[in-house]
Amino acid sequence: MKPINLKEKHNAFSKQWHPHQIAIVDDMQVILAKIRGEFVWHSHEHEDELFQVLKGTLYMQFRDRTEEVKEGEIIVVPKGVEHNPMTKNGEEVHLLLFEKQSTAHTGDVKHELTQSHYPKI
Amino acid sequence: MKPINLKEKHNAFSKQWHPHQIAIVDDMQVILAKIRGEFVWHSHEHEDELFQVLKGTLYMQFRDRTEEVKEGEIIVVPKGVEHNPMTKNGEEVHLLLFEKQSTAHTGDVKHELTQSHYPKI
Repeated sequence: MKPINLKEKHNAFSKQWHPHQIAIVDDMQVILAKIRGEFVWHSHEHEDELFQVLKGTLYMQFRDRTEEVKEGEIIVVPKGVEHNPMTKNGEEVHLLLFEKQSTAHTGDVKHELTQSHYPKI
Repeated sequence: MKPINLKEKHNAFSKQWHPHQIAIVDDMQVILAKIRGEFVWHSHEHEDELFQVLKGTLYMQFRDRTEEVKEGEIIVVPKGVEHNPMTKNGEEVHLLLFEKQSTAHTGDVKHELTQSHYPKI
């Protein structure tokens, strides 16, 4: 029940593709991530996933198109839909995600970027 | 699966204390609200509620204290905790809320500000 400053929390970690949990809302979690480059194609069979861009431009790749998501915008990826977030021109993009606590980082895909645990900050 | 621009959505309505729904994430919803002045003391017995300040300063009153929540900050009000959002000096504050779709606007309290339905925009 204390205010959480998103920029301060983002400043508290540096590793890309390593989400950190900042809050819990019922069975959902709020996580922050820094990303650069391309992630991994995956989907979440049972969970929707909301991305909010806090800094930079996110390119959310779907199999049939790519959506450009700018600072101040959100996008919801519905359950079961394959997606692969990326950034362009070496830009580090800052994200807030809102998703179930049960959501696996890369769905059923195992990858060297896969994190099984999101540290709390 | 399209980007949603938060400022554009906020520009699409003007009435204060009338939340509008912009997205659904599993059984949760994302709503936007413009607020000015003081709301109503209430709690949500079964649902947590997340407030993100997009513009201005929110003063979240609890029975034992008030938290100042600035632009770029979030605060989570746990289920069962009485709260009453307000703004100061006539400022209109823009909020994004994450909460269950089942969350009643003013909990069990009936008030002239109570909205039973949040229009989708």
